[in-house]
Amino acid sequence: MLCLACIGMLPISPLDPDQKAPLFRQLYDQMREMIESGTLRRGDRLPATRELAGQLGLNRTTVSAAYALLESDGLIAGHVGRGSFVTRRAKSGAETAPASFSRSRPSELLFPLAEFRKTCAEVIASDDAASILQLGSPAGYPSLRRYLLEQARAEGTAQESDDILITSGCQQAFDLLQRVMSREPGQRSTVLIEDPVYLGVRSVFERAGARLVGVPVGPDGVDLESLEKIIARERPGLLCVTPNFQNPTGATMPLAARRALLEISQAAGVLVIENDIYGPLCYQGEPIASIKRLDETGDTILLRSFSKVAFPGLRVGWVIARRALIERLTEAKQWSDLHTDQLSQAVLLRFAESGRLEEHRRRMLIAGRERLQAALEACEKYLPADARFTRPRGGMSLWIQLPEPLDAAELLPRAEREGVTYLPGKYFAVSRPQPNGLRISFAGMTPQEIRSGLEILGRIFADALDRARDTASLSEVAALV
Amino acid sequence: MLCLACIGMLPISPLDPDQKAPLFRQLYDQMREMIESGTLRRGDRLPATRELAGQLGLNRTTVSAAYALLESDGLIAGHVGRGSFVTRRAKSGAETAPASFSRSRPSELLFPLAEFRKTCAEVIASDDAASILQLGSPAGYPSLRRYLLEQARAEGTAQESDDILITSGCQQAFDLLQRVMSREPGQRSTVLIEDPVYLGVRSVFERAGARLVGVPVGPDGVDLESLEKIIARERPGLLCVTPNFQNPTGATMPLAARRALLEISQAAGVLVIENDIYGPLCYQGEPIASIKRLDETGDTILLRSFSKVAFPGLRVGWVIARRALIERLTEAKQWSDLHTDQLSQAVLLRFAESGRLEEHRRRMLIAGRERLQAALEACEKYLPADARFTRPRGGMSLWIQLPEPLDAAELLPRAEREGVTYLPGKYFAVSRPQPNGLRISFAGMTPQEIRSGLEILGRIFADALDRARDTASLSEVAALV
Repeated sequence: MLCLACIGMLPISPLDPDQKAPLFRQLYDQMREMIESGTLRRGDRLPATRELAGQLGLNRTTVSAAYALLESDGLIAGHVGRGSFVTRRAKSGAETAPASFSRSRPSELLFPLAEFRKTCAEVIASDDAASILQLGSPAGYPSLRRYLLEQARAEGTAQESDDILITSGCQQAFDLLQRVMSREPGQRSTVLIEDPVYLGVRSVFERAGARLVGVPVGPDGVDLESLEKIIARERPGLLCVTPNFQNPTGATMPLAARRALLEISQAAGVLVIENDIYGPLCYQGEPIASIKRLDETGDTILLRSFSKVAFPGLRVGWVIARRALIERLTEAKQWSDLHTDQLSQAVLLRFAESGRLEEHRRRMLIAGRERLQAALEACEKYLPADARFTRPRGGMSLWIQLPEPLDAAELLPRAEREGVTYLPGKYFAVSRPQPNGLRISFAGMTPQEIRSGLEILGRIFADALDRARDTASLSEVAALV
Repeated sequence: MLCLACIGMLPISPLDPDQKAPLFRQLYDQMREMIESGTLRRGDRLPATRELAGQLGLNRTTVSAAYALLESDGLIAGHVGRGSFVTRRAKSGAETAPASFSRSRPSELLFPLAEFRKTCAEVIASDDAASILQLGSPAGYPSLRRYLLEQARAEGTAQESDDILITSGCQQAFDLLQRVMSREPGQRSTVLIEDPVYLGVRSVFERAGARLVGVPVGPDGVDLESLEKIIARERPGLLCVTPNFQNPTGATMPLAARRALLEISQAAGVLVIENDIYGPLCYQGEPIASIKRLDETGDTILLRSFSKVAFPGLRVGWVIARRALIERLTEAKQWSDLHTDQLSQAVLLRFAESGRLEEHRRRMLIAGRERLQAALEACEKYLPADARFTRPRGGMSLWIQLPEPLDAAELLPRAEREGVTYLPGKYFAVSRPQPNGLRISFAGMTPQEIRSGLEILGRIFADALDRARDTASLSEVAALV
């Protein structure tokens, strides 16, 4: 099943009123494919017809007609007052997603369960157990805050004037920043984000009513020339960047580019939010200093998290920034959810302090390196010759650009039928649509799965390209008549 | 230390420019008392002078002067670039707060640590451990959702058309509701809340820019006559109520009042949010059906949580409402923090399923009954004859109204010097200030602590009343001259 956290609601591609097939039939086709490919699984509840109609800008009867067709196929069943549910399992073994490139998260097979259990047992046996279970502080579990802040000071990332707030993952850090920033009248209302970018970043600011402008991301991260022009034109207050192994492109900004980005932003009075959740997963070359560390003014806001390197199900991230901002974020945090769960904070602290996190990270680096290499080799070997793809040095994802006129979203149902999933460019686009783009997240799979998944994709893409070119040359012939 | 989650920032009472003592001296006095009483503890960081000045509407030099005085007393120390810290411990043993009536939360001494450890060990030893640690679903841990929804259906609280969302405590449920509601243009912008009310409810809507109107709470909860008038006058979209053991008054709405409230709200098209976090803590009499259960339309939104009956440090609450609303809340939840921590969700599910939660609740009922009784008897015995206090049947708090002209906030520093803390009325006021009101939260203390704390308070209040009356009669004498 596609992770809602990655893609929002049901991933229905826009329907085309100019197509021969009526809209309800187009919708039916897409949903049937989702069920057959395992994107929608037995027991999943479908959105109410009114909801889906609203979401897609369709007439409700269109959606009802599509549901009726699915029901007559025995694929879904409606229950009065409860909605409609998927009743049939996927045809293939696709439910276990033999090659799911759609999730940017670690493989469960790599979780060090024995070490986790030991850590947990130590935490709950400790004298602190009662205070962990008691109501805590909005800023975070004090020992974890101290540990992370000292670590950041020791590596030169945090200055004396900085403080730390524990958040429920980086997603919440973005949400709190949006809240605090948008409380400043007017001037923060334009936000620059990378293009393409992780949907969660775009959604946070979009829902808050901010004006979003995308800055193109190239092989060296944010394109600095474009950045300068966009800043001059748009006068934004905020710039969000992911200098290490950006999601979805995998791009890394070189040291000089980071310095230049800082200079450009500071000259224009633009505040930088540095999203560094993938930073610890550097498979090749030396890690590069964070923007926060390079920023002598101390203004940069740094976001980090345990979610990518350890356990995403324990929602623990953190923000390091100037003390005055951390105070405002902490107040916003307090009225959002009082504080982040303390059991997971205490367990992750113990996991880090005991050295188990670093040990696990080393294993993750070995596994990640192997997976990245498998993905790059398979892209080289199986993708059509004129497809382009990024060559990340770490993280979890790479970005493929298919040769024109291929459309990654259009080809997805076919891939899903063959048991392979990915996220097409439309989920990441900000200012410029990239219908030929797609994200391949390799971290959650074995090297063998990566190879066989990309082999299938390569075949589908090559085949589609052949057909497209056939059609094109046919039209040319036709035009000659 | 006063819990930030209960009171917001530093609890400084408004300074009075008409007093003889200059403002910086008044501020110094209040902060010194906070340090000496243990409200501020050794190692606590004070707000930056600029921050505190902004918060209190003071000139920054006023705050700097107060800090300088505290520093010359050896009570705080400033570090360049790091801020000022409390350096001296409280004089008395007040750090352990011998009689802290200021927290509405269970006593740590009542936590069933052995059962909790067993539960945790079972969860992490299970086959589900890996999936708990993996990224989960925005709607919540599926088995916990199913368990809670089935339970709510079995007791008649949830209808077939309802669904459930797991939140990071009830605080987040309010926050998500505020977000989803305020996206409907205009019509939801006036919100009715109880007066007095828990600060967290007020803050959520206030920060979102909603217009808040307080509905007076009497011994039977929300005053229905006032409610009707206010609805007619204000045309609100939402009404938040806590029918069971309201925070801070402890009031419970009788069955007939709940039905009447529903009728009034429905006739006016006002949506009801029912906050039922204290519901399971009913010490006297039979539990009364929830408004959600009485509402045949299914429109009422019910909030519940594990925080009051079990472990507040594990932030797990839930919302039960119509499916379409739950879908919108789930989307808002997703972009707020992806999902609630799964370890605590799984542990609480196991704690409930194993019967340990119900066993623990039974012990909490015995302990709560004893504490409530101790508090009521001590109020009767020690408070001045013309003080009034509520007589809750459950929950964690009762509400005292001191005879005029006593001001609970003014008397707090004196109480703190004697090692007793409480929250004065100003932290709970919405539309009508109640300077003579104060909340006594009894659940976190032993019966003996409750008795001795209220004995001290009774003496302080009686003494202040004597003085006030002396002054009053003196003025009368003077007037006769």
